[in-house]
Amino acid sequence: MKTQSENFLSANETEIEDLGNGLKRQMLGYNLELMAVKIWFDKGAEGYTHKHRHSQVSYVVEGEFHFTIDGVMKVMKPGDSCMIPPYAEHGAVCPTGGILIDTFSPAREDFIKD
Amino acid sequence: MKTQSENFLSANETEIEDLGNGLKRQMLGYNLELMAVKIWFDKGAEGYTHKHRHSQVSYVVEGEFHFTIDGVMKVMKPGDSCMIPPYAEHGAVCPTGGILIDTFSPAREDFIKD
Repeated sequence: MKTQSENFLSANETEIEDLGNGLKRQMLGYNLELMAVKIWFDKGAEGYTHKHRHSQVSYVVEGEFHFTIDGVMKVMKPGDSCMIPPYAEHGAVCPTGGILIDTFSPAREDFIKD
Repeated sequence: MKTQSENFLSANETEIEDLGNGLKRQMLGYNLELMAVKIWFDKGAEGYTHKHRHSQVSYVVEGEFHFTIDGVMKVMKPGDSCMIPPYAEHGAVCPTGGILIDTFSPAREDFIKD
């Protein structure tokens, strides 16, 4: 497994993976302790409720998200962010279509394909 | 010291700190292992070369950045990102004015004011 991305990553030269269900993901920079990814949500797409050991911060680049953390739902707009503590249940619905930057510590090793 | 942000952070309700020299910073979500911040660069502003133990990933939201990591300079545009390994010397100049999302692991405890 690759334990670190290149130091510089160009948006135009990095694969955008179709995850199905209206979601797409592009890897940004990472090493084993920190990872950032960009997620596109089609209008109405949902990131289903799940949880994991990793701390996560999500930042809204575009669109409106109905984000739920441990049963509390907030409407998030561009510029808003959220902190998802380890093992907190979380999920999001995007009624408008939109883009998130999701960051994790440690890295989501399950996202590394190489 | 506060060891975790609120779970939800609204852009409109979070202070934007003037760092001087054409730089402003807004805290996004964080706990002790992961922190995200938003940095505004005025046209021509510079983040001077420095290094730290923290892993860092930076993502360009707006503008063009001349980013240097360990002596290698690349022009970064919106959607591009970079991985700054622990202790790598790094700095950036923003000729256009722009916005970065900087993420760190562990948290930059020096950024926490409360």
